[in-house]
Amino acid sequence: MLHALAHIRIVLVETSLSANIGSACRAMKTMGLNDLVLANPQCDVVSDVSMARASGADDLLQQCRTAPNLAEAVSDCALVLGASARSRSFPWPLLNPRQAAQKALAAASQQQTVALVFGRERSGLTNDELAQCHAHLHIPANPDYSSLNVASAVQVLSYELRMACLAGEVDYQWSAVREEPPASHTQMEGFFSHLEQALVDIEYLDPNNPKLLMNRLRRLYLRAEPDTTEVNILRGILKQTIKAASGKLKPK
Amino acid sequence: MLHALAHIRIVLVETSLSANIGSACRAMKTMGLNDLVLANPQCDVVSDVSMARASGADDLLQQCRTAPNLAEAVSDCALVLGASARSRSFPWPLLNPRQAAQKALAAASQQQTVALVFGRERSGLTNDELAQCHAHLHIPANPDYSSLNVASAVQVLSYELRMACLAGEVDYQWSAVREEPPASHTQMEGFFSHLEQALVDIEYLDPNNPKLLMNRLRRLYLRAEPDTTEVNILRGILKQTIKAASGKLKPK
Repeated sequence: MLHALAHIRIVLVETSLSANIGSACRAMKTMGLNDLVLANPQCDVVSDVSMARASGADDLLQQCRTAPNLAEAVSDCALVLGASARSRSFPWPLLNPRQAAQKALAAASQQQTVALVFGRERSGLTNDELAQCHAHLHIPANPDYSSLNVASAVQVLSYELRMACLAGEVDYQWSAVREEPPASHTQMEGFFSHLEQALVDIEYLDPNNPKLLMNRLRRLYLRAEPDTTEVNILRGILKQTIKAASGKLKPK
Repeated sequence: MLHALAHIRIVLVETSLSANIGSACRAMKTMGLNDLVLANPQCDVVSDVSMARASGADDLLQQCRTAPNLAEAVSDCALVLGASARSRSFPWPLLNPRQAAQKALAAASQQQTVALVFGRERSGLTNDELAQCHAHLHIPANPDYSSLNVASAVQVLSYELRMACLAGEVDYQWSAVREEPPASHTQMEGFFSHLEQALVDIEYLDPNNPKLLMNRLRRLYLRAEPDTTEVNILRGILKQTIKAASGKLKPK
């Protein structure tokens, strides 16, 4: 699905700070986007500041195109989504970034060109510009301070686009990164017997009054889901512990 | 669920650019986060540049705390997630930002303090710092250019935390059957020091050739997220083990 990102364009409308254009390039490139169009930029596009902010994404900065206005910037697009503060006065179809990414990818995967549009630093998109969009996209923000930097907004949307592409493709999990599967039931029971013996030998567990100790330890170790190598390490430790308890360590 | 955000801390380790600290404040505040701790910052925290970047989030900048290192910054935290490039050489539990947000909120909603940790601009977190984390979080990025700005990374995670709050999509199973919260970072580090000593005493760990043993054991025990009672049991076992190794058990 990552190839669909080639059909997604970021459009910045009347950006006034060169730094934000550079940061937007960096945000896009980290997520695999590369089509940037600037609608009537109000600052130098390629400058020391924008180059520094773009960091290794200066190629996007050099390649980006300008257009006189939003309409020209998105003229070939089949789907245009415009970033907006939530408006209740004149509601438009409204998507959060995750929904916007899914909608955008569905179109992009059919080779349709899609634009995600971001407005001016202080005032966003005008009502006329918002009315050129198929839907509005809203980043849910703190109502007491909703002022995302424009490049940060580009970062969030670019990230959601990449996540949507990767959905189901990358295996992330709490216990996923395993080199081997968890130990078998038999291996775990062998470990617990061994553990119990060692605890008796070091006089931590009183076999005549065991209480809940072994159950507490079972719960703890089972929660960790040790693999075979880990069980072998733990049993190696127990073997040495038993040896120590019997006074058979080499004298120091 | 938004109140849970009060229990989530952002930790920046050895940040070298004042601008990034300001931008991180803005990123946090837009998403409703306000607890920022700087571990050994390498630049002025409050400066003209950081104030300008913080924009209306200068209150966070003024309030943020500093700590001499990561361990101090997260000493009271029950869950520590560290941002990392994906490593295949010594894999740790790995979460994407969405999973990390869910895991963090599940803990935060139980009043546990959670830290999301971000490393140096050029080199990220060290291996020692990563080994202090329960899991690593990885922002899936373009393999050809994966260099997210640190404040952009904070923006993405803060956004995911807010989305998770708003969607009510928290997986409570993580922290379900627990009688008490996980042990603090300081308690876990105390346990690991104790464990290392015991392993040397029983001659299982050669201090002159430690290899990866401690890291393997750290990963195993951190995965289990022991609570305070469990850590106390484990340390009771270690105390008896050390006693056994010194030949001080009562003769049978």
